[in-house]
Amino acid sequence: MEKSNERPLILVTNDDGITAGGIRSLIEVAKEFGDVWVVAPDSPQSAMGHAITVHNILRLHEVKDVEGVNEFSCTGTPVDCVKLAIYRVLKRRPDLLLSGINHGANNSINVLYSGTMSAAVEGAVEGIPSIGFSLLDHSAAADFTASKKIARAVIKNALANGIPEDTCLNVNIPNVPYEEIKGVRVCRQAKAFWEDSFQPRKDPAGRIYYWITGNLVNHDSGEDTDVWALENNFVSVVPVQYDLTAHRALKELNDWKYEI
Amino acid sequence: MEKSNERPLILVTNDDGITAGGIRSLIEVAKEFGDVWVVAPDSPQSAMGHAITVHNILRLHEVKDVEGVNEFSCTGTPVDCVKLAIYRVLKRRPDLLLSGINHGANNSINVLYSGTMSAAVEGAVEGIPSIGFSLLDHSAAADFTASKKIARAVIKNALANGIPEDTCLNVNIPNVPYEEIKGVRVCRQAKAFWEDSFQPRKDPAGRIYYWITGNLVNHDSGEDTDVWALENNFVSVVPVQYDLTAHRALKELNDWKYEI
Repeated sequence: MEKSNERPLILVTNDDGITAGGIRSLIEVAKEFGDVWVVAPDSPQSAMGHAITVHNILRLHEVKDVEGVNEFSCTGTPVDCVKLAIYRVLKRRPDLLLSGINHGANNSINVLYSGTMSAAVEGAVEGIPSIGFSLLDHSAAADFTASKKIARAVIKNALANGIPEDTCLNVNIPNVPYEEIKGVRVCRQAKAFWEDSFQPRKDPAGRIYYWITGNLVNHDSGEDTDVWALENNFVSVVPVQYDLTAHRALKELNDWKYEI
Repeated sequence: MEKSNERPLILVTNDDGITAGGIRSLIEVAKEFGDVWVVAPDSPQSAMGHAITVHNILRLHEVKDVEGVNEFSCTGTPVDCVKLAIYRVLKRRPDLLLSGINHGANNSINVLYSGTMSAAVEGAVEGIPSIGFSLLDHSAAADFTASKKIARAVIKNALANGIPEDTCLNVNIPNVPYEEIKGVRVCRQAKAFWEDSFQPRKDPAGRIYYWITGNLVNHDSGEDTDVWALENNFVSVVPVQYDLTAHRALKELNDWKYEI
């Protein structure tokens, strides 16, 4: 923090859109810890990954919802929101970035597709302590009572300890009542992939179009993974880095013969 | 490959769109090595990151361009294209996925925003040897003569040696004539970020909108990075992984006290 007598400046965003129940819950918790500014998408932006808007314009609208909170909706992606917040909206760099609470799981390989987590990763790239929260309940009416308690505990630790350099946290919360949550597990991302299928349908003119659907296939039996933790009613906390270099592979590739 | 007497099945995609000069050049090179299938966006999809289309429909159109090549354009993102190819279009899993050649750099932190590289990462998640190629020239009329030679050399190695498990390759090519390219460097991703700015403009009704612009700020002086290699006229090859876990941070986070 720039001034020790200032309350932490907390930026809140998400990918389900600024009116979603998950971000409303997260704003409530964030208010306990600092001055809250919200820059979030004006419409659902799930599965937008780390997309930014370069081929189109962006609009930003100030909205008034919660007393004492500054809120802006944006026509762009979650990462656009983070960039607009840092470089256009906020008067100083935030001390903490919170993304979510997502309606639905962002564990395992979903970290790649998730707008919620990409916003947190963008925060990490910018050197801002950043946390993404997700509840394993897709429904719009999901109950965030337990999630708020979990978020409070994680935020308290993050403000006290900081977050490991060049990482952000991916926090997933099992969809069970608070009393049934067994604790918090620090995990690695489980190795899984989406077995997709494309449902063909016909439009009124008889032309075929597709909807993507899929099943997450987990082929990782490790008990140190986020999938395992969540299946066993633990909260999973995965430190996520933006350096994608596979350092272990450097040597092997150095042995290649490039005849150029 | 499923049958040893078959030519490799090569899937080609990109993010600049199916008509871009870069993918046309890559298709020419790919044809030398195997049976080529193209599933690529029907419009520019730069900076779409790992986005997939879940809130809208997808359309797929067979197009005829190059003799002996099966081509489909898709209304979705580069990652949508890879998923449609694997789960809808191709009769068997491809032996190689090639993405690009991108018009513009995808080194350093750009790997996160790049549709070209996200397509390659998606291939890696699916267990398919995958390579993204990018030329450091944004222009639509970029000259891919040198890039084609580089792509040929990398593909030859990839087919002979395979690609390290759970990784894909991020190949960036300096924008200089072939004779000035000094060789190939296997690198790590340089630590950099985009210092963004948002240009405000007014629409005809007087309402403000923004265009994102920015400067890449490299604060990594390492000579083992892709930025260094490219600045010194080397081709950079970075192995990219989809496990985003910051394993080094697990211990520190295990020391946190979660009072839940």
